[in-house]
Amino acid sequence: MTIIALNSYAVGKWVAPSGRLTQLKSAVDGRVVAELGAALDFAAMTAHARTVGGPALRAMTFHQRAAMLKALAQHLNERREALYELSYDTGATKTDSMIDIDGGIGTMFVYASKGRRELPDDVIHVEPGIEQFGKTGSFLGQHVATSLQGVAVHINAFNFPVWGMLEKLSPTLLAGVPAIVKPASATAWLAEAAFRMMIESGLLPEGAVQFVAGSTGDLIDRLGSQDVVSFTGSAATAGLLRGNRNLLDNAVRFVAEQDSLNATILGPDAAPGTPEFDTFVREVHREMTAKAGQKCTAIRRILVPAAHREAVIEAISDRLAKTPVGDPRAEGTRMGALASLAQREDVLEKARQIGTEARCVFGADGFSPAGVDVAAGAFVSPMLFACDDPDSAEKVHSVEAFGPVSTVMAYRDLDHATALANRGAGSLVASVFTHDPAVARQVVIASGAFHGRLYFANRDTGKEATGHGSPLPHLVHGGPGRAGGGEEMGGIRGVMHYMQRTAIQASPDLLSAITKSFVKGSTTLAKEAHPFRMTFGELEIGHTLETAAREVTLSDIEHFAEFTGDNFYAHMDEEAAKANPFFPGRVAHGYLILSFAAGLFVDPAPGPVLANYGLDNLRFMKPVSPGDRLAVRLTAKSKTRRNDEYGEVRWDVTVANQDGEPVAAYELLTMNAA
Amino acid sequence: MTIIALNSYAVGKWVAPSGRLTQLKSAVDGRVVAELGAALDFAAMTAHARTVGGPALRAMTFHQRAAMLKALAQHLNERREALYELSYDTGATKTDSMIDIDGGIGTMFVYASKGRRELPDDVIHVEPGIEQFGKTGSFLGQHVATSLQGVAVHINAFNFPVWGMLEKLSPTLLAGVPAIVKPASATAWLAEAAFRMMIESGLLPEGAVQFVAGSTGDLIDRLGSQDVVSFTGSAATAGLLRGNRNLLDNAVRFVAEQDSLNATILGPDAAPGTPEFDTFVREVHREMTAKAGQKCTAIRRILVPAAHREAVIEAISDRLAKTPVGDPRAEGTRMGALASLAQREDVLEKARQIGTEARCVFGADGFSPAGVDVAAGAFVSPMLFACDDPDSAEKVHSVEAFGPVSTVMAYRDLDHATALANRGAGSLVASVFTHDPAVARQVVIASGAFHGRLYFANRDTGKEATGHGSPLPHLVHGGPGRAGGGEEMGGIRGVMHYMQRTAIQASPDLLSAITKSFVKGSTTLAKEAHPFRMTFGELEIGHTLETAAREVTLSDIEHFAEFTGDNFYAHMDEEAAKANPFFPGRVAHGYLILSFAAGLFVDPAPGPVLANYGLDNLRFMKPVSPGDRLAVRLTAKSKTRRNDEYGEVRWDVTVANQDGEPVAAYELLTMNAA
Repeated sequence: MTIIALNSYAVGKWVAPSGRLTQLKSAVDGRVVAELGAALDFAAMTAHARTVGGPALRAMTFHQRAAMLKALAQHLNERREALYELSYDTGATKTDSMIDIDGGIGTMFVYASKGRRELPDDVIHVEPGIEQFGKTGSFLGQHVATSLQGVAVHINAFNFPVWGMLEKLSPTLLAGVPAIVKPASATAWLAEAAFRMMIESGLLPEGAVQFVAGSTGDLIDRLGSQDVVSFTGSAATAGLLRGNRNLLDNAVRFVAEQDSLNATILGPDAAPGTPEFDTFVREVHREMTAKAGQKCTAIRRILVPAAHREAVIEAISDRLAKTPVGDPRAEGTRMGALASLAQREDVLEKARQIGTEARCVFGADGFSPAGVDVAAGAFVSPMLFACDDPDSAEKVHSVEAFGPVSTVMAYRDLDHATALANRGAGSLVASVFTHDPAVARQVVIASGAFHGRLYFANRDTGKEATGHGSPLPHLVHGGPGRAGGGEEMGGIRGVMHYMQRTAIQASPDLLSAITKSFVKGSTTLAKEAHPFRMTFGELEIGHTLETAAREVTLSDIEHFAEFTGDNFYAHMDEEAAKANPFFPGRVAHGYLILSFAAGLFVDPAPGPVLANYGLDNLRFMKPVSPGDRLAVRLTAKSKTRRNDEYGEVRWDVTVANQDGEPVAAYELLTMNAA
Repeated sequence: MTIIALNSYAVGKWVAPSGRLTQLKSAVDGRVVAELGAALDFAAMTAHARTVGGPALRAMTFHQRAAMLKALAQHLNERREALYELSYDTGATKTDSMIDIDGGIGTMFVYASKGRRELPDDVIHVEPGIEQFGKTGSFLGQHVATSLQGVAVHINAFNFPVWGMLEKLSPTLLAGVPAIVKPASATAWLAEAAFRMMIESGLLPEGAVQFVAGSTGDLIDRLGSQDVVSFTGSAATAGLLRGNRNLLDNAVRFVAEQDSLNATILGPDAAPGTPEFDTFVREVHREMTAKAGQKCTAIRRILVPAAHREAVIEAISDRLAKTPVGDPRAEGTRMGALASLAQREDVLEKARQIGTEARCVFGADGFSPAGVDVAAGAFVSPMLFACDDPDSAEKVHSVEAFGPVSTVMAYRDLDHATALANRGAGSLVASVFTHDPAVARQVVIASGAFHGRLYFANRDTGKEATGHGSPLPHLVHGGPGRAGGGEEMGGIRGVMHYMQRTAIQASPDLLSAITKSFVKGSTTLAKEAHPFRMTFGELEIGHTLETAAREVTLSDIEHFAEFTGDNFYAHMDEEAAKANPFFPGRVAHGYLILSFAAGLFVDPAPGPVLANYGLDNLRFMKPVSPGDRLAVRLTAKSKTRRNDEYGEVRWDVTVANQDGEPVAAYELLTMNAA
């Protein structure tokens, strides 16, 4: 068996270990798997990221970065088998490895997709909502975000070497920011293998990513206000880093995701025999045993109605008893080893502390995993505790045994349950097993402020439920207080951690130019050609059509009513319409206004406009009375390329009456040929 | 002249000064204005906020809190004169005081209005965007925010004692979080007067606000993960607070807004003689002299094209020479005093440091303000510096003289200008005077990441431009790095600093109950009565109408085309329609589908539905061919009360064909009588 020499990747070169080396051992049998150690030049690495990687990434649009992520995820996806093979020695079963490896690649795919769908094909992200400060609208405000011009330092945890790396890299690269990745040493060989695949893919621009196999040295002291530290790990390590004087003095962003004392609540309605009870037991068992309980999101505190406590203990213990623990490579093994012997020592010590406040109801007695050397491998038994006085207890709410360890506590009523859940002083997730909508709403109000995620499962959520312990790229992962006070992912929210929000104040013309979106009040382009004759590529933002006017007659209204069947009294009954607080008398149907507007602006012959595929933000602003004359102004507002054949065009449309008063305004969506 | 004894307000009681008192002196003549000093029980105060104030505020909806803010702002607005009177001794002119007092009250009004318009009449804020994780949609994700259950500690700066207090209190109270206000001592008598008015109004629930006239003692050490510190002041003080071990260990939110070295850029196009040049000179002068330059947002660095440097220096110096400095009470005074003699010492020392890198081109020589005792009052002359080598210089980019002090620097081209602007290492705002849209976009891309706000002014922005130095409640106020890395205000964004975002995962039914909004896939209420017969109050979320079906014939399509004038080929020409990539042949107009849908669901007789006022998120999902039969499902999705007479109802509408396939989906908006 060869020992892997873990390389760093710095300033575009692989750097072999040197100096005093650290040996990394298999969690399963204790043999040396890899060694690492390097003296890296962090001044050169940060400079490389800032001056080479950053500019290269910022020269790409969000869509280009998204395409890069997609290709990168595909590249990794084709090489999963090699990663699974390396993963066993971290103690992980195949199922565990899939959470890490497939989960990480899946996260990258989701960011690729969201980047394409939810961000523009540009380098500036524009937040919705234009603020007007005066009557005429000559001065406006809007928020945009642009890429930070520094480097992201990712400090990852040992439990998910691949997912942890990819869930941070995906939003960072999508934001256009280069990263220096520092994996946890204990499982660094797996992270290095996945990192090496990314470099070898040739898909990333030079300087976009670097890798530290070893200590971070003075890296943190070299960061400034355009940089970000994104940390996953223990509260203790986070606390040390957070207090770094350089980070504090330069207000360096510090995103922390710490392990926490996550709770699950069995709803008051979820008695034994209900589907919720069974789902709950399965979920607790899974959270205790997956990754041998080494998940930041694992259930540490099990809150159950007092009446069902014994039934819960029995049901969970039954399942635990039937869970084969052993060699993760062996068929039939359901729980592998902890990541290291040091980790086992730590878990046993923390379990001992919890044991001072709670009885062990399922545990270590007679634990002997089959076919492994228990002295050499980091195996522990699942341990279930029961705490009789959770109100007085302290340790069960604050001491985290980062392994297959959890504590059952009884609650009196839902207020008591949420109060106990909140005793974790901030957590990544709490789950609730209930079929009662009122219970769900009450938990959100009472406990939402203490949890980054609230997971509700019941008979309706079925197989699509993603699991208490699974952070998803679409949703924020993080939590207040003990959980670190940070947020990761959450879709595009996670990208914004690597961008700076800036409030822009400007005239409509300048705001249009900055956001590449027509803003009301800015100069329009009046052209000979109908804008619908322009291909997607030819069409310029601001290109405007002003139509002729058309009268709406009473007979139009009556005819429309008869034709469509919409005989609402406001259109048909003068007296009743007058009695309505909004109408002066009979008025035209809103859809009649829209239909006539289309009749005024549509260009009938085949051309680049392929279809009207929707409409947004329609507001009727003033009633249209018989005899009113309507005209339309239609302006190309923004464009989004979808593929080589066509793209979407958003049009700003205003329908005005003979006095120039807007009667309706909306945004029209068309699909235009390239 | 009486000396004001500044009271604290703790646990529902006014607490008079005691122990060793600190005397606060007039900035104008040095006489003692007020004294303060108190030993407060911060354990009791934080407990009072958390157990009395917080629950009272959280029992109110956003709309109720907004109404409270509006009443509070009105109460203060009627008492402005008394505050102006107290403000002179801070050194402020009447114009300065209006920035502080009217600006603060205006901010509270804006939050009242935004709370009403942009937040629900509920305690849970729901973020848009539902995530679906499986094919059937039985398990969904959405983000909500709920009030933090702790206390906000507001540490305010001396320069805007009223605005500073109200711009923090407004979003905090709207979020449902109680506050402990700690004003800067130097001008605390003015803050206390405004605070006292709020207490005396009786508009705030007990425990919602408390006031610390004196030291914060061990207050910061008593904060936990549900608490927030919101700080405005110097980078030095922020650095001290930030490093507090208790804050770090509990991941206590720390929102900092620090002074910064804000820049202004005279655009390459803004030569002398252009309107931009004149606006620029006026703005620089105003920023140097308003509040005697004691603004976190004031212009400290003036970046101009090399060719126009001398013209800029001359124009600004001319205006400064004509600026009467003196007693803020005296008519004709345009610039008052700094807030204290200590502040004057500090400004003069910082100006001396800047003077080591830049020449003073307008300044202190022969400075003798009329009618005041220059030894007793904190008067200084405006000082304009010119730095010849801004690339090598350090202090002009980092030393902030918090007074009427600014430095002119020449740039070669726009890249150089933005690089110099970024040398501030993070600022609250930078302004750009340009009429060139390309310049505006380039500045955003090159400099956005370094600035919390970018202010573009030119001939078009005219009188509505709000000023480089004015933070607005609608826009974020804050900036990276040197500016503190925090954000305040920004409309509802600022409210979220006092709330916790939580990702909710649940079945459609539970998600509907939590968000009080019908979610696709949740159980609908099929009732006898047409939902349009329900008043706003009677209507239940989920109430659903399923209509009969109606066929769309070719003659309907042809008739609609003729009637509306919309003869688009996809409706009229079978061959051409077939050649379109999206259509199988001739199809119905989108607006025909909408119109027929309305004909199917509208209830014609007068009733609670008063008007259709708009439509959102319409998407056409499948073409409708002649012979297709359409039916509509309409479900009450959400309700927003507007006043005692009526409220808005949002309806989820799906139009489906004979195979049950959705052909169009949208949200319909109606105004319903109470």
